[in-house]
Amino acid sequence: MPVHSRRGETLSHSPIRVLMPYARAAKAAGTHVYHLNIGQPDIPTPPEALDAIRKNAETIIPYGPSEGLPTLREKVAQYYEKFAGSISPNDVFVTTGASEAILFALFSCCDEFDEVIIPEPFYANYLGFGHTSSIRIVPIPSSIETEFQLPGVEKFEELITPTTKAIFLCNPGNPTGCLYSKEELAQLMKLVIKYDLFLIVDEVYREFCYDEKFTSVLSFPDTHEHVIVIDSISKVFSSCGARVGFLVTRNKAIQKVVEKYAQLRLCPPYYGQKLAEVCYDYAEDYIRDAKAEYTKRRTILYESLKQIEGVKCYLPKAAFYNMTQLPVTDANDFCKWLLTDFTHHGSTVMLAPGSGFYLHKAYGLNQVRIAYILNEHDLRESVECLKIALDRYNNRGKEGILNHYVTEAPVKRVLAPSNDM
Amino acid sequence: MPVHSRRGETLSHSPIRVLMPYARAAKAAGTHVYHLNIGQPDIPTPPEALDAIRKNAETIIPYGPSEGLPTLREKVAQYYEKFAGSISPNDVFVTTGASEAILFALFSCCDEFDEVIIPEPFYANYLGFGHTSSIRIVPIPSSIETEFQLPGVEKFEELITPTTKAIFLCNPGNPTGCLYSKEELAQLMKLVIKYDLFLIVDEVYREFCYDEKFTSVLSFPDTHEHVIVIDSISKVFSSCGARVGFLVTRNKAIQKVVEKYAQLRLCPPYYGQKLAEVCYDYAEDYIRDAKAEYTKRRTILYESLKQIEGVKCYLPKAAFYNMTQLPVTDANDFCKWLLTDFTHHGSTVMLAPGSGFYLHKAYGLNQVRIAYILNEHDLRESVECLKIALDRYNNRGKEGILNHYVTEAPVKRVLAPSNDM
Repeated sequence: MPVHSRRGETLSHSPIRVLMPYARAAKAAGTHVYHLNIGQPDIPTPPEALDAIRKNAETIIPYGPSEGLPTLREKVAQYYEKFAGSISPNDVFVTTGASEAILFALFSCCDEFDEVIIPEPFYANYLGFGHTSSIRIVPIPSSIETEFQLPGVEKFEELITPTTKAIFLCNPGNPTGCLYSKEELAQLMKLVIKYDLFLIVDEVYREFCYDEKFTSVLSFPDTHEHVIVIDSISKVFSSCGARVGFLVTRNKAIQKVVEKYAQLRLCPPYYGQKLAEVCYDYAEDYIRDAKAEYTKRRTILYESLKQIEGVKCYLPKAAFYNMTQLPVTDANDFCKWLLTDFTHHGSTVMLAPGSGFYLHKAYGLNQVRIAYILNEHDLRESVECLKIALDRYNNRGKEGILNHYVTEAPVKRVLAPSNDM
Repeated sequence: MPVHSRRGETLSHSPIRVLMPYARAAKAAGTHVYHLNIGQPDIPTPPEALDAIRKNAETIIPYGPSEGLPTLREKVAQYYEKFAGSISPNDVFVTTGASEAILFALFSCCDEFDEVIIPEPFYANYLGFGHTSSIRIVPIPSSIETEFQLPGVEKFEELITPTTKAIFLCNPGNPTGCLYSKEELAQLMKLVIKYDLFLIVDEVYREFCYDEKFTSVLSFPDTHEHVIVIDSISKVFSSCGARVGFLVTRNKAIQKVVEKYAQLRLCPPYYGQKLAEVCYDYAEDYIRDAKAEYTKRRTILYESLKQIEGVKCYLPKAAFYNMTQLPVTDANDFCKWLLTDFTHHGSTVMLAPGSGFYLHKAYGLNQVRIAYILNEHDLRESVECLKIALDRYNNRGKEGILNHYVTEAPVKRVLAPSNDM
């Protein structure tokens, strides 16, 4: 029997999706699972965009241009002007989600074994994209103590070697909800110019900044050759399944290379692009409302988490994630236990274990990423559920636990499925 | 200024799309371009599938399962039974076009520098997929003299080394329209078992076999661990822009690896999958009609090409391509000239130069790939156009050419744009 590749063997599972089989089993056993583990918004997709798809009169769905539909590139370029200055439609490549844009950027900028510096914790799939493109990710730790703010520029400089090719950021940050300031980014800009590096920034959460103003790396003058921005309609327009993202750069040489990678896979999905076109027509009002909703949820999550003894958290500045420290020693085990051994009123919570967002094996072991993408009611219920779960998890094996809970939470119990303690 | 990657530099342009700028310029100058260069069918997408998209009532387009929608995997598994025997929905991965399925297959089976034997000429983008996955493509020549039939199994065996990991076929063949018989495939099966290789077969054209019966490599018993099939709705359901393909394998170890690559890019496009689901409901009637249309076009193309002096061609057995030898020494130059220096009645023809389908630089220089994806009228017009172009191209620089043509083709001339001789 022929053996699969070593690289296929060593590719990591997504930590966000790795617990899915347990979640499926829990659901099959009748448990309701609150998904705080994935960045899948519950906010409706812009209805005008959905309607446009319903009214589509095309009789044939042909290949489109590899770079994306010109009408969409035009709209995206216009949308970018408010935070990036002048952008040409030629600077915008439509991709199959931000995932493809990241792969295009890594393949276009880096050769095998080139190093890319990324602050950790980082979006876990960066690891897989780095693995697929055979680059070396060099993590630079940030800490929950400082709410995961950008490490000082000197920390980046210390890590630069002759094979460093790029710095990669996620701003606003997934999984941390951090937001890098204009001053911090300006410092990094000097560094990438000094060492002739690319600066690749995933800005898919840029519209969800709650207190401070967002700064795009596209807005800095005289750095156009260095900057590549990754974008997507998935989060901002609640259209994750449409698979439409963007790679934006003014670097003409990179454009020529990206064009070749784009031609290779023929074109991005037609329907997603038609949906995206209309999303941008309604962007201002839609984003204002979505942001108001996330602002509310952010506070609810933060205020509720604060009430749980032993939990360390902070008010995230942006995106819709909170990297939270739990009073457990092994968050991986706890997250699995939530799905296999716990229910409260017939429900449980699914979280993304924090260690999956770090390259350093010793980091994030007691952290989880919580996405505040549920409505107010569900968010409150799920944090209540988490609170009870933590207490029960940390008192496993001790006597009288069940009685303790009946006393503490004298609510009417749904007849428990077999895995409810 | 930071420099793009070497691998980005060395990635080839698609030979099918590389002439596009010239085509755009020709169109901008008012010339009508007959596109015989791309496999973009002009047959309508199944109207019932388009209607299903119009009736879609979802209010949110969320991430789907990484492996594809269960309903679609179920339908595809059922569809496969007629030519592959029993296939489980778990054996079917939905991908973003066949392009992604090919990348998943190469990354899952092969490590960097592993060798994959492919008969040439082959679909040009295989070169790019091989480049992206850092494998080594080992071409095995087939010839127009034998209508590009599968090279003898001994030719494959000669090329096998310790680093050979797979044999890759396109059956039915793009760009050749060849069809491999059950006996030929059985010989190859023995070889992949003997040397413990994977057999990856792109079967996207399987429904368009005009004279003989198609044999899927999935239909052979006792070879399940070796076989990976690539598929797509693009050609069979005229839905190239939907970006839905499939990777089908019964090899459980490969499934586990493919699942990780699938998770990495989150999910295939939602709308394309919903379209595909309905396509399979109407497959039988739709495919019968489409095949009848291509059968007619195949004959028209073949009969018309035969009339042109110096052209060598054959009646292709399958798909909708014909690899044709022209009476020119440099088909690349001729194909470009068609777009930059020729029109006939305000029209010209776009062809895919044959050399782009060969890895050996010396092969295919006087060949072109012709796709018979135009309706009868346009197909006849375009071959007429080609005939006149060949004559004019081969008589460039000789006196009296224009008079010659006026005499030979005394048709009413449209006022010629400036690039019409």
